[in-house]
Amino acid sequence: MQLSSPEPGLDIPARPGDPLSAVATPALVIDLDAFEANVARMRDHAARLGVRLRAHAKTHKSADIAQAQVQGGGAVGICCQKVSEAMALVRAGVRDVLIANEVVAPRAIAGLIRIATRARVAVCADNPDNVAALSRAVMAARAEGAEGLELEVLVEIDSGAGRCGCAPGAAALALARAIDAAPGLRLGGLQAYHGAAQHIYDPVARAAALAGSIRAAAETRDAIRAAGLPCDRVTGAGTGSFAIEGASGVYTEIQAGSYVFMDADYARVADPAGGVTGGFRQALFVLATVMSTPATGRAVCDAGLKALAVDSGLPVVAEPAGVTYAEASDEHGTLADPAGRLALGETVMLVPGHCDPTCNLHDWYVCVRRGRVEALWPVTARGRVF
Amino acid sequence: MQLSSPEPGLDIPARPGDPLSAVATPALVIDLDAFEANVARMRDHAARLGVRLRAHAKTHKSADIAQAQVQGGGAVGICCQKVSEAMALVRAGVRDVLIANEVVAPRAIAGLIRIATRARVAVCADNPDNVAALSRAVMAARAEGAEGLELEVLVEIDSGAGRCGCAPGAAALALARAIDAAPGLRLGGLQAYHGAAQHIYDPVARAAALAGSIRAAAETRDAIRAAGLPCDRVTGAGTGSFAIEGASGVYTEIQAGSYVFMDADYARVADPAGGVTGGFRQALFVLATVMSTPATGRAVCDAGLKALAVDSGLPVVAEPAGVTYAEASDEHGTLADPAGRLALGETVMLVPGHCDPTCNLHDWYVCVRRGRVEALWPVTARGRVF
Repeated sequence: MQLSSPEPGLDIPARPGDPLSAVATPALVIDLDAFEANVARMRDHAARLGVRLRAHAKTHKSADIAQAQVQGGGAVGICCQKVSEAMALVRAGVRDVLIANEVVAPRAIAGLIRIATRARVAVCADNPDNVAALSRAVMAARAEGAEGLELEVLVEIDSGAGRCGCAPGAAALALARAIDAAPGLRLGGLQAYHGAAQHIYDPVARAAALAGSIRAAAETRDAIRAAGLPCDRVTGAGTGSFAIEGASGVYTEIQAGSYVFMDADYARVADPAGGVTGGFRQALFVLATVMSTPATGRAVCDAGLKALAVDSGLPVVAEPAGVTYAEASDEHGTLADPAGRLALGETVMLVPGHCDPTCNLHDWYVCVRRGRVEALWPVTARGRVF
Repeated sequence: MQLSSPEPGLDIPARPGDPLSAVATPALVIDLDAFEANVARMRDHAARLGVRLRAHAKTHKSADIAQAQVQGGGAVGICCQKVSEAMALVRAGVRDVLIANEVVAPRAIAGLIRIATRARVAVCADNPDNVAALSRAVMAARAEGAEGLELEVLVEIDSGAGRCGCAPGAAALALARAIDAAPGLRLGGLQAYHGAAQHIYDPVARAAALAGSIRAAAETRDAIRAAGLPCDRVTGAGTGSFAIEGASGVYTEIQAGSYVFMDADYARVADPAGGVTGGFRQALFVLATVMSTPATGRAVCDAGLKALAVDSGLPVVAEPAGVTYAEASDEHGTLADPAGRLALGETVMLVPGHCDPTCNLHDWYVCVRRGRVEALWPVTARGRVF
């Protein structure tokens, strides 16, 4: 999205130096102080836990943020979910990517091979037919001149989430053997990601769900090693669970992503100590303008379904107090304002229900410090879904 | 999103001429035969009803589709919801736009004035302070050289949807007077759009909800005219309601948008005759690939929340039969496949629950006829939310 002279309000939401009041709305806003604190906090968490941090870039899809995570945030590299997403970030300078997902469609495998010739890249697999296809693709690339190309492939197990992943134990071991035996592939370890556990609000119930996941990962790792195969990497975990997997002694790498921003749903995910998980601060907001005050107690803002993902609940109003976001339509958000605080043209700060798909709706992060726009960061891989 | 050499699977989902099997997934697919039939059918509906069609481009955000609607589809122009959306389409050649929404934020008003110097543009208002701000902006532009610039402003009433719009009757008349008296503005008529009625599945209940809306529009129009002000345009209506408002004798212009594509929710909106509303065909799909078959009865495809909007329900599986879309996560769709029909790498055709926000997730329409990609159309105004 490079334009020779992008116009604020038409092509870009703001220019660096603008006051917050001049930002075209709805806009995706990063509170830089909170963001930087979150990046440093996760670096410290990982160091304390003795695990590597491989930050998940699916949350932000931003080359600027990926670089911040790697350069000062303690990350050894990033995760992506999609080939096109990874390529967009590799082109922007990222050098080490785990595609924490299966890559199956022929065009996606072809893209994966393209990335592997430019950066360190690993991928997950849960099916022997897919392992064979990946191997054929690497060997075909070698035949076409990509000498010595090797693709690192991790066994993904379903450790309890009920989505992708082969069964732990024997099936996983068979897959590890298939990867190890496949020309052009290198066995890269084990992925066990329990996505469903991330958002269990109660810390005791969450730990219980993760206990089985950690046991499955440990048993599978041990079975792979007992067969004489390497399994130095056990990767997984997210913002809601990293403290538990990270302390397990089983996981060597954590894949948290949402910690950089947080969202309204993660604010409900409690720490055993009673705070919000990990002590992260809300750093992501959608700034909206009141565009109609049609009736007492009701105001309408300009941020609806195309500016905010609602799959994990409606946004929460951070400012002003006493106002709630009652209903989302495509381009409108209806606000309940019982005390009549909102006037036409005023702004509201919204906390998205779910950060990842909200960021994917926008082209730009408006990075703000002390009420002024400090930078505009592109959402580098926005819309790169394939 | 122009690239010197976009790569299929990394930058674009396909190239013209590709078979459907080579399209990188998830991809937003248009069935061109169904799309063209829908465009022609709405042209004929509008002619039969004796109303102007002003197709709503918020659905598709595509310059190619807007041109098809204007050039062969009987549309007098288009609607947009946002200033940046309208500007993207005007730059691509659209010449007549109604922003069927309020424009309030200062940067949005500045953008609106920019558009008004390049194309025929009208906008809605529901608040006298906003009318004054629009007037000031036009007069400032005149002072800076935009000689004779005039902005057409419509009174928007809340005819029952409970979102934006001033009250019908006296409040609307006062606003019409304010627009008429404001330097640089021209009173453009009345907007009465009952968004909440579009998706009432039962045709009798829908007609009942619209009866009050039509009455409010008629009474307000009459009040404006009785005051000696012009009200030649009464605009509103959508795909779920155009047949009723169009036949009312009150509306002169219908704003339907979804008819070009349809979606899983509109398939539930019944005609009085028992068919689907308007006789439109499903023309929009998301093509996805089975990326994991981890357990009997379960498959996982590569289209999740970032490829499909779920605010109006989960997608419906068009092909193959016997499969349902059970759960969406960010990059995955979990499919229930009780008969075990799906193999790894097979494709599924999904009908999105809600077309507008689904299109807004993608950069490209993959236009298909008889199993082959005929064209790639950019989603011109994708992400233009401000």
